[in-house]
Amino acid sequence: MKHASVSSVSIDRIMDGKRTKSPDLLAREEPLEIRLSSGKGSSRIQRAVSVTMRTPGHDFELAIGFLFSEGIIPNYSVVSGIRYCINKETGEEETNIIRVELDEVFELEWKSDRNFYTSSSCGVCGKASIEAIQTNSSCKRFDDDQLAFSAELIMSLPEKLRKEQAIFEHTGGLHAVALFDAKGELLIMREDVGRHNAMDKVIGAKLIQNKTEFSDCITLLSGRASFELIQKAVMAEFKVIAAIGAPSSLAVSLAESFNLSLVGFVKADRLNVYNDSSRIHS
Amino acid sequence: MKHASVSSVSIDRIMDGKRTKSPDLLAREEPLEIRLSSGKGSSRIQRAVSVTMRTPGHDFELAIGFLFSEGIIPNYSVVSGIRYCINKETGEEETNIIRVELDEVFELEWKSDRNFYTSSSCGVCGKASIEAIQTNSSCKRFDDDQLAFSAELIMSLPEKLRKEQAIFEHTGGLHAVALFDAKGELLIMREDVGRHNAMDKVIGAKLIQNKTEFSDCITLLSGRASFELIQKAVMAEFKVIAAIGAPSSLAVSLAESFNLSLVGFVKADRLNVYNDSSRIHS
Repeated sequence: MKHASVSSVSIDRIMDGKRTKSPDLLAREEPLEIRLSSGKGSSRIQRAVSVTMRTPGHDFELAIGFLFSEGIIPNYSVVSGIRYCINKETGEEETNIIRVELDEVFELEWKSDRNFYTSSSCGVCGKASIEAIQTNSSCKRFDDDQLAFSAELIMSLPEKLRKEQAIFEHTGGLHAVALFDAKGELLIMREDVGRHNAMDKVIGAKLIQNKTEFSDCITLLSGRASFELIQKAVMAEFKVIAAIGAPSSLAVSLAESFNLSLVGFVKADRLNVYNDSSRIHS
Repeated sequence: MKHASVSSVSIDRIMDGKRTKSPDLLAREEPLEIRLSSGKGSSRIQRAVSVTMRTPGHDFELAIGFLFSEGIIPNYSVVSGIRYCINKETGEEETNIIRVELDEVFELEWKSDRNFYTSSSCGVCGKASIEAIQTNSSCKRFDDDQLAFSAELIMSLPEKLRKEQAIFEHTGGLHAVALFDAKGELLIMREDVGRHNAMDKVIGAKLIQNKTEFSDCITLLSGRASFELIQKAVMAEFKVIAAIGAPSSLAVSLAESFNLSLVGFVKADRLNVYNDSSRIHS
């Protein structure tokens, strides 16, 4: 595989006063530039949208998930192609540059105030950040689903994730985001040095694979739940989020605003419910 | 204090099949907009530079550290004032908007290619990201210092950090960055929901307080070491970095390029040396 997720290095381990040379594996981190290309033929316009530091692997999903969760593309059907750029001199693929091609002259909503975090209504604050998502995106409150998960089932998920997260075992360096169905079966898992990238990879997979089971799932985060992760979850309509780590204050507020169920500190025998929305039963 | 670092909420704890209401503390997360203001009198120009999600507290340090570590200001002496913006209607401070005022008409280097991660020389790759720092910043390799730390001393630091990190104990939601001197004495610690913010707060404190002991220190990270954190460390001339978590591949490469000492997985009885540079002795 051209883009493995790990790099091998030689390190010194120091333990009990002894220093020994030893091989080790690191989580790979490489920049990925995402470019958008719109229009046809000679009127085609290409522009760089973002550079993110990511772990190589599932790059197309990452690009699509990022563009969608940032509100740049409204759905996957406006995308006509995704490819790595070609180096004109060598003719080889540039595996750190992705071009996402749009099917028609898609009017990009490049608002100058595209950033969700700011809103002119009441200055800069947590409330404004949440209102900006309500205003700037097509997201609606999650009010009409019948999702339900038992606390017992949720408590069983971290162990399942750990078994899947093979790379983390080796490197200790990767965040994971995973979707499970109502029976606790793993649907998909993605890893990355950046937890926002792991989430975008899962969102991209949801859009590209378009499987219905991805809609009625529970989303497990290997670490903490920040505003950014819950914002992406809202965009992707992930209605139940379980974090192995702690949520932030604004993550909880955002979950409440969108009626998204949020639990944290999930362990084998306990968990905390930060926002229930009648989907978590003990 | 207007901006406490924690929020109190009421949650449901589920344990052993029992569900009980309980008070809980969350790490606060709020947006902070950083504005730069240059020029004098009526020719004063103000522009928003960034919005970051941060834990309130030490905001001025965060703003200065961010502007410096991103290469936007070259030093602290170009800053003539830092203040929260005033809401014109209420007359009150907007504690989520900071204005950093520059002493004179400071020619801002707003290169369109300000982003360190990309370089036109050889496309987008880890090597290019490192070369971009070498080219775009005034950073030089750390070759002429006499710093030395024993592995034993480094192994003692996580416990010291844990004792200081009072908020983490309550919320489980904060990253910390701390500086220690050669005797293992804590010089400064800053916490944040974003580890890059915790690093920027420490860098801002270094610039504002201008203490010489901040130059000959060891920097402890409560979590993992990514490229971004090592890039900021290079800018701040922090030559020895110890991470309680794992480093990424690109963090190690960057440390090697700048002759920065990097250790990871620091525990009470062991650690891994990823790049020594003759400063870590066992």
